[in-house]
Amino acid sequence: MSVEQKLCFDIEQLGQARFSNPMSSAKFVDDDERVLYFSDPKVVKAALDQGQEPLAFELAGPRKKIYFNPKTVRCGIVTCGGLCPGLNDVVRAIVLSLTQHYGVQSIYGFRYGYEGLNGEFGHQPVTLNTEVVNNIEKLGGTILGSSRGPQPVEEMVKTLDAYGIDILFAIGGDGTQKGAGAIYEECCRQGREISVIGIPKTIDNDISYIQQSFGFETAVTQARNSIVAAYNESVSTRNSVSLVRLMGRDSGFIAAYAALADSHVNYCLVPEVPFTLEGLFQSLEERLSRGQHAVIAVAEGAGQDITPPSTETDASGNIKYSDIGTFLRDQIKQHFKPKRLKFNLRYIDPSYTIRSGPANAYDSAFCLLLGHNAVHAGMSGRTNMVVGNWSNDFTHVPIVLATSKRKRIDPDGWLWDNVLAATGQPRDLGSASSYVP
Amino acid sequence: MSVEQKLCFDIEQLGQARFSNPMSSAKFVDDDERVLYFSDPKVVKAALDQGQEPLAFELAGPRKKIYFNPKTVRCGIVTCGGLCPGLNDVVRAIVLSLTQHYGVQSIYGFRYGYEGLNGEFGHQPVTLNTEVVNNIEKLGGTILGSSRGPQPVEEMVKTLDAYGIDILFAIGGDGTQKGAGAIYEECCRQGREISVIGIPKTIDNDISYIQQSFGFETAVTQARNSIVAAYNESVSTRNSVSLVRLMGRDSGFIAAYAALADSHVNYCLVPEVPFTLEGLFQSLEERLSRGQHAVIAVAEGAGQDITPPSTETDASGNIKYSDIGTFLRDQIKQHFKPKRLKFNLRYIDPSYTIRSGPANAYDSAFCLLLGHNAVHAGMSGRTNMVVGNWSNDFTHVPIVLATSKRKRIDPDGWLWDNVLAATGQPRDLGSASSYVP
Amino acid sequence: MSVEQKLCFDIEQLGQARFSNPMSSAKFVDDDERVLYFSDPKVVKAALDQGQEPLAFELAGPRKKIYFNPKTVRCGIVTCGGLCPGLNDVVRAIVLSLTQHYGVQSIYGFRYGYEGLNGEFGHQPVTLNTEVVNNIEKLGGTILGSSRGPQPVEEMVKTLDAYGIDILFAIGGDGTQKGAGAIYEECCRQGREISVIGIPKTIDNDISYIQQSFGFETAVTQARNSIVAAYNESVSTRNSVSLVRLMGRDSGFIAAYAALADSHVNYCLVPEVPFTLEGLFQSLEERLSRGQHAVIAVAEGAGQDITPPSTETDASGNIKYSDIGTFLRDQIKQHFKPKRLKFNLRYIDPSYTIRSGPANAYDSAFCLLLGHNAVHAGMSGRTNMVVGNWSNDFTHVPIVLATSKRKRIDPDGWLWDNVLAATGQPRDLGSASSYVP
Amino acid sequence: MSVEQKLCFDIEQLGQARFSNPMSSAKFVDDDERVLYFSDPKVVKAALDQGQEPLAFELAGPRKKIYFNPKTVRCGIVTCGGLCPGLNDVVRAIVLSLTQHYGVQSIYGFRYGYEGLNGEFGHQPVTLNTEVVNNIEKLGGTILGSSRGPQPVEEMVKTLDAYGIDILFAIGGDGTQKGAGAIYEECCRQGREISVIGIPKTIDNDISYIQQSFGFETAVTQARNSIVAAYNESVSTRNSVSLVRLMGRDSGFIAAYAALADSHVNYCLVPEVPFTLEGLFQSLEERLSRGQHAVIAVAEGAGQDITPPSTETDASGNIKYSDIGTFLRDQIKQHFKPKRLKFNLRYIDPSYTIRSGPANAYDSAFCLLLGHNAVHAGMSGRTNMVVGNWSNDFTHVPIVLATSKRKRIDPDGWLWDNVLAATGQPRDLGSASSYVP
Repeated sequence: MSVEQKLCFDIEQLGQARFSNPMSSAKFVDDDERVLYFSDPKVVKAALDQGQEPLAFELAGPRKKIYFNPKTVRCGIVTCGGLCPGLNDVVRAIVLSLTQHYGVQSIYGFRYGYEGLNGEFGHQPVTLNTEVVNNIEKLGGTILGSSRGPQPVEEMVKTLDAYGIDILFAIGGDGTQKGAGAIYEECCRQGREISVIGIPKTIDNDISYIQQSFGFETAVTQARNSIVAAYNESVSTRNSVSLVRLMGRDSGFIAAYAALADSHVNYCLVPEVPFTLEGLFQSLEERLSRGQHAVIAVAEGAGQDITPPSTETDASGNIKYSDIGTFLRDQIKQHFKPKRLKFNLRYIDPSYTIRSGPANAYDSAFCLLLGHNAVHAGMSGRTNMVVGNWSNDFTHVPIVLATSKRKRIDPDGWLWDNVLAATGQPRDLGSASSYVP
Repeated sequence: MSVEQKLCFDIEQLGQARFSNPMSSAKFVDDDERVLYFSDPKVVKAALDQGQEPLAFELAGPRKKIYFNPKTVRCGIVTCGGLCPGLNDVVRAIVLSLTQHYGVQSIYGFRYGYEGLNGEFGHQPVTLNTEVVNNIEKLGGTILGSSRGPQPVEEMVKTLDAYGIDILFAIGGDGTQKGAGAIYEECCRQGREISVIGIPKTIDNDISYIQQSFGFETAVTQARNSIVAAYNESVSTRNSVSLVRLMGRDSGFIAAYAALADSHVNYCLVPEVPFTLEGLFQSLEERLSRGQHAVIAVAEGAGQDITPPSTETDASGNIKYSDIGTFLRDQIKQHFKPKRLKFNLRYIDPSYTIRSGPANAYDSAFCLLLGHNAVHAGMSGRTNMVVGNWSNDFTHVPIVLATSKRKRIDPDGWLWDNVLAATGQPRDLGSASSYVP
Repeated sequence: MSVEQKLCFDIEQLGQARFSNPMSSAKFVDDDERVLYFSDPKVVKAALDQGQEPLAFELAGPRKKIYFNPKTVRCGIVTCGGLCPGLNDVVRAIVLSLTQHYGVQSIYGFRYGYEGLNGEFGHQPVTLNTEVVNNIEKLGGTILGSSRGPQPVEEMVKTLDAYGIDILFAIGGDGTQKGAGAIYEECCRQGREISVIGIPKTIDNDISYIQQSFGFETAVTQARNSIVAAYNESVSTRNSVSLVRLMGRDSGFIAAYAALADSHVNYCLVPEVPFTLEGLFQSLEERLSRGQHAVIAVAEGAGQDITPPSTETDASGNIKYSDIGTFLRDQIKQHFKPKRLKFNLRYIDPSYTIRSGPANAYDSAFCLLLGHNAVHAGMSGRTNMVVGNWSNDFTHVPIVLATSKRKRIDPDGWLWDNVLAATGQPRDLGSASSYVP
Repeated sequence: MSVEQKLCFDIEQLGQARFSNPMSSAKFVDDDERVLYFSDPKVVKAALDQGQEPLAFELAGPRKKIYFNPKTVRCGIVTCGGLCPGLNDVVRAIVLSLTQHYGVQSIYGFRYGYEGLNGEFGHQPVTLNTEVVNNIEKLGGTILGSSRGPQPVEEMVKTLDAYGIDILFAIGGDGTQKGAGAIYEECCRQGREISVIGIPKTIDNDISYIQQSFGFETAVTQARNSIVAAYNESVSTRNSVSLVRLMGRDSGFIAAYAALADSHVNYCLVPEVPFTLEGLFQSLEERLSRGQHAVIAVAEGAGQDITPPSTETDASGNIKYSDIGTFLRDQIKQHFKPKRLKFNLRYIDPSYTIRSGPANAYDSAFCLLLGHNAVHAGMSGRTNMVVGNWSNDFTHVPIVLATSKRKRIDPDGWLWDNVLAATGQPRDLGSASSYVP
């Protein structure tokens, strides 16, 4: 798939309809500015040698000519899925940029995620302006509310029609962005022009072609607090294991960085690297026998091949992951309690506390830049894209590309290598599972 | 029971053995200084009218004459039971005061609680001095380690003998102080002089005759973080209930103050005030029907009459409390899931994170004062007592008095009244339990 | 002066006008409940022996009968003077208690302190209700704004008349409470009934007859951060002195508790204890000569006898204190720079950061209780009083008593003794000043 | 200058001396792996079209063959210059990697910066091992101590000889790295092989060819706290200006990101963008006349053309920058005090508090990775280089390149554009200075 997928409405029409950007800027971005995806010169050279353009993203930023008339354009914002630090910062940045940079006057905040775009729920949107969003960055959660799962695309487009929305900012994860793509497709089908701009929200940092997602660093910061607690607990009594369950359904970045941030983690278990209970128990046994404690950080999606399969489904109808956290907790207890005097297993699950708080300073600044760039993209007529960042630049990434696959830890790459180096855990904690509960 | 129980060795003997306090102090405390227990003038007057001394504690602080020779006295410190913010501060304060104020040279830190006093475990004590304790206040947990449960008193006295301990500082809760009392009794029986000074450690703030215990304010601070998270979660989606389980086995002070500190708590459930599932469900149902969320803070020891009885026993052989947290979580889910679309129950249990971190500034200052006063008490030949605080003064409280009953929230008092006023919860959430699971 | 000064309107009239308290409470307080001021049994006994009532405060809390009709009463709130953590908590608590406990419907927030009560400034008051005050406790500062200095009392009463204010809640320090007293007097003179309830605000914790004031603990917490920084700086280079200027115009409680909270402070300088530059320099010289660093915490009002007299006046026309912080900084530099290679003096003044942030959990809970009790006092017809706390109870203290003198550190008391013990500084750093700049 | 400067000892000799890397790694880096400097495909293509290699850095990471024998190699670590969050993390990471990954047994920590390498000062180095560095990441500052300014290179080499140092890790800024380069040159001159590996420390984030330096994000986080305080102060009283002085001698990145992180900053003044007092005063006057407050964040090196020239010199003999912070404070007061009733100027200088604390979680993880990669570089025989990061990879950058120029904000680039957009300040605050004090 090419990154160079069309991100705008018909470019000819765009040419005719252009307004002057009312914003003062020293750095209007030209439409042909790009950011290389690969930083390895050999890869870039190879592409060029074969006469191909090396993979690259459109550079984000304000354009000299914009597509929508700031005086009449009507914008909508929606926040979907689980909470993530920085949601209010992004909402605030979009509202401030629309009003203060472009003079936009009509901004609707749809309530409770995509439910707010389905008229059947009867949620009325709120009017957003600078006064409403002042200081909301100090609050966690989202002032718009959220919900999980999809809504019928026709219903959603009907609501957007009812409010005359020209630009929709959809802040949410993988599923949300797919929904945003579907809204775009449906509008195209109906011959309705709409700029759909996604701001990717994934506390797991697992969106491809995007270096880092907002809220991730805040999450690592909070995760470290739990790991410090786990360490303090486990060194304070003998025969102690502390187990911290962190977020990370398909990608273990939070657990990995938390292990790097506090190298008192002894085992980091992530979805990308299989392990067996036998392998883990044997290694734990060795530590305990040396009179040592153990701190384990486990990503929620780790070890799905060793847990009893889940039967619950989520709002979108997918099979829910089994809970490796409580499973490990129970198995470790069951295995070690009979063997070791006063064996202690402390289990810490900080998930809600991690995701529901306000963003740290870095993430707040990052959210502001995402919001600014989302507005620039929307006002310039981009659509069907998300705002990304790569190599210290902000980029436009087609929704289909961003949702094509998940970003995951490479078990053979430098990140995992450093996690192993930091924890000192064996590279192989049992590759094939033979556990029978 | 009289507070005026003897806190010292034989006073005549003490008189003969007195050394001059090497400490520079403007405020040497006289042995007859007291702090009134009751602040209601009617109560005090009534006692005096009947010719009785009103209940009062001995005032803590440095004495002009001390009992032990600083050059030769040998001291021990032990930390017992669950972690509590400030343990290292107290250890540090005792070491700094012994060395810098009195010039004491022999201080042993016994490892892993009372296990460290039982030779069978083979734990060697560590030597404590100013260098070892520098900066330990920045770490959570206890550098000495801890353990739960009692050890045979003869074994413990044997170890104290082996190291020639004259003063034992026992930092721990109810059980620890009873153990300290037993050590004192056994030493008396053997005709061995030992100063046993307790520093009461109870994150639940449930020790009687003591206004506040160290770590409690830090715990409330941490608890608020979880409540903010619970609130952010529950207002961000519809039909949401957030449940925060806080510490508080017999006394709900942490939950109560956390509810006051963040008046976004809608229900505060404590051990002192019974409730029924029906009562709670009915009130919850009303809130949800009005489109409102709910935040519940529940102390771990609440509702013991409505949970299935526990069969687990702890290290001391007592029946463990049932887990009201997970019980409530499951019951609420089971009750509301079928009734309400996308009903959400978020469960947060921050216990380990709360108790294992370092103390906040107030608690650090408080721990320093406790440590100083413990040393003054020990050096002056007090024994069989704990250091307390009352009415802005530090006091000496006999161990038997401090461990005679727990301090609990008065359901008819001003604290609970203000909690009800802050949460808006009904005073009666079902007084008699009729729940059949 | 007797504490038993009349706190209410004419009691007979009060008797006739009483409404039933609409609040549900298990603990309506009787009008004769008192809290003893002295906790020393000898003092109390001596008073009784002489046939006197021992000094005691009226107990705060809800009364069964209230004076004002909740349906028609009109209330005003004003915040005055410098910022203090918890101002918004108190405003919020008063609004929540008036509306949710009593059903009061008219609450005005006067803007910018007493300026808002002087019509000449043209500040319009804001209407306060539960929605406006939701979440304001997360913000520092005061949503009402503030100003320093008095306004003409007739003008203020005129404004209160214009808005028909029956109860005025005045949150502020010494000067503010004196102003509140003046408003009460002027209303009496005019035969106008008004309940004037003060909530004492002093980050310095220097109001007499009140155990602790809101914001103080938060201030100590923040102050510790600066002291940790000062310590880290001074141990990282040789020949280093770090100087932290803390708040404390007349009373050094913040500096004293900060020194206890982080016993890395080597010198604590407070207004209550004189010192000379010679004395300080000599002691510093000894530390530096031993290869040691030094951390100094100085209260802003310390050493006023050794600084060049200030000529600036403040908003109230009083001579401003000289700035001991920058004076000491310059004198120390001047003295030691020529003598010591690469001598470093780091100066840290965290005042604005300390006072402008939100309250910590303890202070938030405390502010809620103050606000509740202020509302109970006002609704029950108390006037000319402030809400205090003493011995773990909340109290009513006449304004004249609370403003009669400042609470200060007793240089011969246990607090200063422990500060000296913690810092290790000499008790005497030069008692008579002979410094000639 | 070419990035491809030789980073190792003579490669032939290196070839012969190679040992096997004892570390388990899935990702040994080949010596020809590179990271592109430019991410603009047009720039890369242009270079290739001209037959040039595009600018690229050597990729960092463990090598299969290493130069030094882990059993005998002797390593030294030194920390220089002003404090920066993360110094202890880097020290710790180097020690842990040397001991745990390579089994190195001799590690010396030289005290007080380059002073510790000059025998005349008599500072003895400390032995570093895993026990010593455990938990030091929780402390701010540097456990090794630091100093500013250079020392004679011959003296330093003599000390390195005396301790038989094979690898020197120099953690410090621009001047430190130049000193490290000089040590390398002198060793070359003497025919002595030494691996000199720099870890660039600049809280200002102003080292070229390096995406971000450790401590920078922590600094932004702390800076935001001061800005929140400044905002709270200035909105709480009328006619208020708050001025926050932040670090940034030549580059205003901290001020810029702090302005993005909390978009309550109204003016961000940085060294890269000139302004005049007249321009600033005029804009301030307009805000105040509209009844608005103002928050100003000024980098310490801003406005050097409008301040009276400094005459002080620093430890290295350079002219010190004038203090724009206190200058602006005084000028603003002087200008506005006479004009505006109760005009308030609050001045906040959080510098020491910002730089002396521990690193946040992101910076801790980053420091760990820097430390690991520094050790890999040193063990593999690299020298005369610093460890950098670029495009999500870690790199080797020649010292001469890293110290060739400073990284600065581009006044015409996207960062400054977004700062202007966030603050709303005029792009031109007076371009030519005409101020006469």
